Amino acid sequence: MNAKAILQSHIAKTTSLSDDEFDYFFSHFKPQSYKKGQTIIFPGDAVEHEYFVLDGCLKSFYQTDQGKMFILQFAMPTWWASDYEALYNGTRATTHVDCITTSEVLCLSSADREKLCRELHTIESFFRWRTNRGYVAAQKRLLSFMHHDARQRYEEVLKLYPQLYNVVPKQLIAAYLGVSRETLSRLYQP
Amino acid sequence: MNAKAILQSHIAKTTSLSDDEFDYFFSHFKPQSYKKGQTIIFPGDAVEHEYFVLDGCLKSFYQTDQGKMFILQFAMPTWWASDYEALYNGTRATTHVDCITTSEVLCLSSADREKLCRELHTIESFFRWRTNRGYVAAQKRLLSFMHHDARQRYEEVLKLYPQLYNVVPKQLIAAYLGVSRETLSRLYQP
Repeated sequence: MNAKAILQSHIAKTTSLSDDEFDYFFSHFKPQSYKKGQTIIFPGDAVEHEYFVLDGCLKSFYQTDQGKMFILQFAMPTWWASDYEALYNGTRATTHVDCITTSEVLCLSSADREKLCRELHTIESFFRWRTNRGYVAAQKRLLSFMHHDARQRYEEVLKLYPQLYNVVPKQLIAAYLGVSRETLSRLYQP
Repeated sequence: MNAKAILQSHIAKTTSLSDDEFDYFFSHFKPQSYKKGQTIIFPGDAVEHEYFVLDGCLKSFYQTDQGKMFILQFAMPTWWASDYEALYNGTRATTHVDCITTSEVLCLSSADREKLCRELHTIESFFRWRTNRGYVAAQKRLLSFMHHDARQRYEEVLKLYPQLYNVVPKQLIAAYLGVSRETLSRLYQP
């Protein structure tokens, strides 16, 4: 499937757009290729875009001064990524976004997203649905952090996103679960 | 300020509605009073409403079979509360929502929110903005849980929501921070 068909199929799951409306929507996205390990957003950057993943896998993460990494989000194909705090509030990035593998994305600027939301009510409805889903997922993960142990969190992620385990190295899964790699290795045992 | 003026002032911060549009929007809300300690949502309930707080304070929380409480959210005046996973997905509640103090709220049904979003583009825009803000707050709290210690989390909440400390008992602040009451008492020391 090409980029246009992937985005169209993603949007069509929740939103009815005519072909002309979709063509207009799609015309605001810019394709971009990144190499494995390449950084898209650095802390301190002005953040003007969000990224719809076509192929590959991104991660967004916070890194302490001592180099310890905490992964906020992975982004597999048809997932979206950015530093959303910076993007929505017009502040500087506090997280990194980089590429776990070679990745193909479609970039949408914040200015274009807002223009599209004003011009097409249906597009505003799509973005509301998307952010509702993200909000609920973030709340569930928060509760899971509060009252589940490492094994329960590991099993939840395995159930929710089985495809992650084929793509993402174990030490990154550990950094997402908030455990050491050694703890994660123990969880792999039956 | 009466209920209508409180909601109007809340909406006007981000959204331009004519008086007629606001009157129509407001006509879908139902005022409700609750006593201190009263439960609005129980786990297992079908969740059909969200609640805009006019006065008082609500909390949403998860409780283990052993009775341990984890607070997902407080809701002070002009904040919104519900079990959003259940509300957005049409599933059964997994959390409780109850009243820390005597509370006055405005209830909006999910069916009416969706109808209003279809009928008035500006209302859809308001609800997208509101969830964007909630999404960013949930992500920040998640990162804070991952890499801040109890004292840092305590100071963050104190800075973000100083008004909470006048209303919410210490053991509930502790259940929000994910620490014991004893740990919280130590954090109160200079």
